Amino acid sequence: MMKTLQVVLGDRSYPIYIGKNLLSQTELLTQHIKNKEVLIVTNTTIAPLYLQDILTVLTDYQCESVILPDGEQYKNLEVLNQIFDQLLQSHFSRQVTLIALGGGVIGDMTGFAAACYQRGVPFIQIPTTLLSQVDSSVGGKTAVNHALGKNMIGAFYQPQCVIADTKTLDTLDDRQLSSGLAEVIKYGLINDAEFFDWLEQNMLKLRARDPDVLAEAIERSCQDKANIVAEDELEHGVRALLNLGHTFGHAIETGMGYGNWLHGEAIAVGMLMAAELSKRMGWIDDEIVKRIRKILMSAGLPVATPNDMSADQFISLMAVDKKVQDGHVRLILLKGIGNAVISDNYDADKLVETLEFFQHTP
Amino acid sequence: MMKTLQVVLGDRSYPIYIGKNLLSQTELLTQHIKNKEVLIVTNTTIAPLYLQDILTVLTDYQCESVILPDGEQYKNLEVLNQIFDQLLQSHFSRQVTLIALGGGVIGDMTGFAAACYQRGVPFIQIPTTLLSQVDSSVGGKTAVNHALGKNMIGAFYQPQCVIADTKTLDTLDDRQLSSGLAEVIKYGLINDAEFFDWLEQNMLKLRARDPDVLAEAIERSCQDKANIVAEDELEHGVRALLNLGHTFGHAIETGMGYGNWLHGEAIAVGMLMAAELSKRMGWIDDEIVKRIRKILMSAGLPVATPNDMSADQFISLMAVDKKVQDGHVRLILLKGIGNAVISDNYDADKLVETLEFFQHTP
Repeated sequence: MMKTLQVVLGDRSYPIYIGKNLLSQTELLTQHIKNKEVLIVTNTTIAPLYLQDILTVLTDYQCESVILPDGEQYKNLEVLNQIFDQLLQSHFSRQVTLIALGGGVIGDMTGFAAACYQRGVPFIQIPTTLLSQVDSSVGGKTAVNHALGKNMIGAFYQPQCVIADTKTLDTLDDRQLSSGLAEVIKYGLINDAEFFDWLEQNMLKLRARDPDVLAEAIERSCQDKANIVAEDELEHGVRALLNLGHTFGHAIETGMGYGNWLHGEAIAVGMLMAAELSKRMGWIDDEIVKRIRKILMSAGLPVATPNDMSADQFISLMAVDKKVQDGHVRLILLKGIGNAVISDNYDADKLVETLEFFQHTP
Repeated sequence: MMKTLQVVLGDRSYPIYIGKNLLSQTELLTQHIKNKEVLIVTNTTIAPLYLQDILTVLTDYQCESVILPDGEQYKNLEVLNQIFDQLLQSHFSRQVTLIALGGGVIGDMTGFAAACYQRGVPFIQIPTTLLSQVDSSVGGKTAVNHALGKNMIGAFYQPQCVIADTKTLDTLDDRQLSSGLAEVIKYGLINDAEFFDWLEQNMLKLRARDPDVLAEAIERSCQDKANIVAEDELEHGVRALLNLGHTFGHAIETGMGYGNWLHGEAIAVGMLMAAELSKRMGWIDDEIVKRIRKILMSAGLPVATPNDMSADQFISLMAVDKKVQDGHVRLILLKGIGNAVISDNYDADKLVETLEFFQHTP
């Protein structure tokens, strides 16, 4: 059974297909390819598992592939250039379609390469991790990292379609699955308390990879995200809510070296830090912080900051993050489960207290 | 006296200011800067001449600058990254405004950096060469080169405004001035026969840098280009006419190594090659080819291909150029002065004849 969800963005609207065994459905993919030229971008982990499936579907196409190293530490301009090398060596024109086959890193890099190659060519997302199915598949944020900050170089660029095949989650390791669950939990926290309740009740089934429960979680997450993105595509306002946990989390990812902490792991801790600061501001009570800590732990996610990151290091790294406006770090905080707010008016002292609390809590 | 020309592109419309001594007019620049953060991008040639002028105007701003090496050979991802380094080291936010102070290379790189930094920040163009004043200042094409092809990595991204100060042309060397005149002549050839006549009559004054005649040529060129861009911003159709001479010219620039031939020099020869092929197709007579050769020579431009470039090398390099559609190299050819056409239906044999004719003509 396949679910189809439409992301509504005017002439940049596109469908997300969610279901089991979608990769082998030729028409699903080919209807979105306008020309015979195709470049598949994937990585060393995914290529042995699923590249042949796609090549089989595209036998009638002038199809090439480029296989990048796997990991966040390779999401940079230098590795991006390998995609351009392949495109130019194959003499691919402005009519080429790029296909991103992999997790969030592959999706972000392929999308950005598509945005830039000859100033813009179409691309298709085939996310193969839970995190990329619920996060990067909606919203058109593409980017690479810079040594001084995550996702600092990129573009808003929408795909032709997204094909989320839940079969690909069977090969995901547990740590990657948990990382994806962090983003799923985030949608409940932002503005969907009912979904948060549902997640508390279904966490065991999700971790056991029950395909129907997974498909439901993916659909609900994509829908929640699509609603926010439809309202504010370029992040001038409410879209910033999606960054819940991310300013803290990006500091962890950058501070620990890209690839050492998974994205979902870092934002899990980041969401708990946001909750702790919200509590110290008197906006939520301790019961809510405990509930958040509990669901993160039941999802197999960390709830403590890295031992060797000081409060000062957090402050310095957070200042580079792109949520800074006029020198003040803007944060996404909580006024309840399902009630996230964009906040400039928290206490700077309470932020330092929160960072120190985490520094001294094992 | 200042002329103002509006480039009409919906909510991406912007003004071009043309005149003498505009750099010292504070309000002209500052009205287009929305925030206190400014990064000026310039090069080692222009910085000693004009950087201080801009810094003086922006004393109230949090203003940094980055000085890149001068030349087309530096228009690549690696040097682009120096702009990102400076932006991040200065902790500049999404509210930063980038200012491109220099020729086409600086404009292309700064515009592309602005398109990508934190997925898009505003930028202002202050073109200091004739070529950049009549070409890069209109149309929002930004890019860097790849070893395998010119301008292959980029974005369509419009500036907040363009300030073309004719005073900056006083410091331009003769070769650079001639290079700019190639693009000026191009507008006459594409769709403005009256302007072409005017250029034939005024070439001596232009080369003598008569400020009023220069300002008139700049305004007319920008207007001609703006009309085409307004009709087809993303180059799905008529905008391709602006590539007259460019497919041949890019082959020369790439083949000879970026920076050895100036862009205008390469497209001057390219336009003559397009004229020669058009003549061999029977679309124009030899008188027109001679007129084109004559005006290029009077502008101080080359009319012969590099000695060491073979017809085969041209064919191979032209196949990489982005005007390729479905494997066939699309060219811009002439059916008269002021009557350029986008053509797929020229004879491949006559293209080879044309290339060989130039190869054997000193």
